[in-house]
Amino acid sequence: MASNPAGRPTLAVVGATGSVGAVLLQILSQHADIWGEIRLVASARSAGRKLTLRGAEVEVVALEESVFDGVDVAMFDVPDEVAAEWAPVAASKGVVVVDNSAAFRMDPDVPLVVPEVNPHAARVRPRGIISSANCTTLSMIVAVGALHAEFGLSELVVSSYQAVSGAGRAGVETLRAQLSLVAGTELGTSPGDVRRAVGEQTGPFPEPVALNVVPWAGSLREDGWSSEEMKVRDETRKILGLPDLKVAVTCVRVPVVTTHSATVHARFQSEVTVDKAREILATAPGVVLFDNPAAGEFPTPADAVGTDPTWVGRLRRSLDDPAGLELFVCGDNLRKGAALNTAQIAELVAAEFIGA
Amino acid sequence: MASNPAGRPTLAVVGATGSVGAVLLQILSQHADIWGEIRLVASARSAGRKLTLRGAEVEVVALEESVFDGVDVAMFDVPDEVAAEWAPVAASKGVVVVDNSAAFRMDPDVPLVVPEVNPHAARVRPRGIISSANCTTLSMIVAVGALHAEFGLSELVVSSYQAVSGAGRAGVETLRAQLSLVAGTELGTSPGDVRRAVGEQTGPFPEPVALNVVPWAGSLREDGWSSEEMKVRDETRKILGLPDLKVAVTCVRVPVVTTHSATVHARFQSEVTVDKAREILATAPGVVLFDNPAAGEFPTPADAVGTDPTWVGRLRRSLDDPAGLELFVCGDNLRKGAALNTAQIAELVAAEFIGA
Ligand SMILES: NC(=O)c1ccc[n+]([C@@H]2O[C@H](COP(=O)([O-])OP(=O)(O)OC[C@H]3O[C@@H](n4cnc5c(N)ncnc54)[C@H](OP(=O)(O)O)[C@@H]3O)[C@@H](O)[C@H]2O)c1
Ligand SMILES: NC(=O)c1ccc[n+]([C@@H]2O[C@H](COP(=O)([O-])OP(=O)(O)OC[C@H]3O[C@@H](n4cnc5c(N)ncnc54)[C@H](OP(=O)(O)O)[C@@H]3O)[C@@H](O)[C@H]2O)c1
Repeated sequence: MASNPAGRPTLAVVGATGSVGAVLLQILSQHADIWGEIRLVASARSAGRKLTLRGAEVEVVALEESVFDGVDVAMFDVPDEVAAEWAPVAASKGVVVVDNSAAFRMDPDVPLVVPEVNPHAARVRPRGIISSANCTTLSMIVAVGALHAEFGLSELVVSSYQAVSGAGRAGVETLRAQLSLVAGTELGTSPGDVRRAVGEQTGPFPEPVALNVVPWAGSLREDGWSSEEMKVRDETRKILGLPDLKVAVTCVRVPVVTTHSATVHARFQSEVTVDKAREILATAPGVVLFDNPAAGEFPTPADAVGTDPTWVGRLRRSLDDPAGLELFVCGDNLRKGAALNTAQIAELVAAEFIGA
Repeated sequence: MASNPAGRPTLAVVGATGSVGAVLLQILSQHADIWGEIRLVASARSAGRKLTLRGAEVEVVALEESVFDGVDVAMFDVPDEVAAEWAPVAASKGVVVVDNSAAFRMDPDVPLVVPEVNPHAARVRPRGIISSANCTTLSMIVAVGALHAEFGLSELVVSSYQAVSGAGRAGVETLRAQLSLVAGTELGTSPGDVRRAVGEQTGPFPEPVALNVVPWAGSLREDGWSSEEMKVRDETRKILGLPDLKVAVTCVRVPVVTTHSATVHARFQSEVTVDKAREILATAPGVVLFDNPAAGEFPTPADAVGTDPTWVGRLRRSLDDPAGLELFVCGDNLRKGAALNTAQIAELVAAEFIGA
């Protein structure tokens, strides 16, 4: 172990200048400070930039092999192809890599970890790499995992309401630009008028997203499925350790800046009660149960944005299935959906160093 | 039969000044002109107003019993309580009432009709009243009904993406006002900022709908269900003649002006193929299959608004269930979701008069 003088582990943040990186620096500044040195790494383009971390200015260094010298844990928040190339480089130097990209999530030798659900998995990492899940999976998996632990899950049907920041800074800028074009107009009542107003300004989305919803996220996979939908299914199965779980998913982009929502229809191995489900969700770590429609209480992205937990509401027993539950969940896609989960995994690993 | 000189049936439009009424007048002006006299009726507040119909000005008359003298068919597009009081009055005078409200939909002596799905049901109307379905049910029932006719439906899981005009003119005005407050701002990235900006201007919605999604529509029913969700379940069962169909629904409002969308997970009695489903949907009346993600083709509200059919895309066979299909549907809630379906039912009835 290459710890710094204070005996605390050394951390590298690779992708510190990105949109997930920015939230990560906030989180690292707010959480209990368990790290010794923290190195901020990005591309050569950003070398020399100064970022604020734990109340001080830290200079960004360019990604090269030597940045991992003496590092214990590295968080990667970079594009898939950069992670695919550089995570093994870091791991070969003995660094434990926590990767937020899709590059290794389905690798059987890489655990896919959500600390509230399968923290034990982080200890078995043959390649020295641990993956963090996709933001849409993370918007619901903490709540679903808690229910699974009690009732045993047999089937999931998930429909997402995904925020534009899931497509990075470009997604947010695109929605803002489109909203300025449509605000205060009569647009949205006759065919094609939103499309005409927005023109080619669709940014990372295939269709206008202001005054619209777009049933597509990611790239085209087999048989008409989107990559985002396949991630939700495959990652859910891996995290829950249920390789044969029935999962149906449709991913839809909505004009929300940050916080993914989803409806979840969950079937369990035997009869469930709402009272028991409520008790589980009210005490599950990382979950806020906000569910009293009589008092106007149910989660929306406007409530959940900027917060850590998964918000759960609209909890109902399926009317026609005593083993089914319906829920509506919201989770900040930049916090639990990305930076927070990565930080939590890194903290699990750091505890090993500190405990050692 | 009280036909006019030309031998064509006489129609009354009750609620001609409302938002559904306005679309109905357009439709009546565009469809093949099968009607003789058309009387426009609203509250006493609107008596004397002139509206354009079939290229001419027609004066609105106040609702009273005598407006039904000599009328063959009356379409009601008024609030539930007005329909509950006045539809029986019209029916008692021999008028066939086609009602767009929720007042009679679940009455066992009132058929609930979607002409593409169960046109025969319109002929059996013990009370002289025929109901038209709720807009959310209508956003998906034509496509689902066509698949049911071929494969035999056993279960539905529906999540809606409902437009604000489903809450009438007030819904549209509320979204416009909120959009003006949030357009071009940094709102939507920290907790409560959208709520603070919008303040009390939430109109008919319980929460801000701009830069947000709201998992609530209608009033509170038992066990945490919303009235809108119960309507989708109960009306789907009645229209399809499947009183025991398993239906799970979550209704969510989104910042779209007009056109409801929904994800549908449908299970059938036996194995299905996408090729066969595609063939059915491509030829089903009232359906447009717009489904080629490789070419960027899938429906969005911006495509479907102002058009008559149900748009269907994202058709996939469920990955883990050979008897399941996933789809995404869009339908204009003011056209097929309200005025168009009412007009189609009235035209079915008119054909009886003309055929007689
Ligand atoms: N946005 C989300 O909701 C979300 C959720 C879950 C997971 N993720 C995943 O998290 C990762 C980062 O996403 P993001 O939204 O933060 O992206 P982003 O805003 O585009 O940031 C990308 C980061 O990667 C760095 N980078 C790019 N190319 C590099 C290279 N060749 N060498 C070294 N650094 C390089 C960039 O540094 P420069 O500034 O120097 O270019 C920047 O720090 C992606 O894998 C993404 O899929 C995102
Ligand atoms: N909006 C939708 O997407 C939608 C979809 C499906 C079904 N529906 C149903 O369709 C019906 C009409 O909805 P809407 O959105 O068109 O409502 P709206 O815009 O509020 O219009 C209401 C209409 O009812 C008339 N009316 C109200 N009180 C009356 C009274 N006491 N006597 C006679 N007429 C009266 C109004 O006439 P004045 O102008 O004189 O007040 C107006 O023509 C409702 O039952 C609604 O639930 C609506």
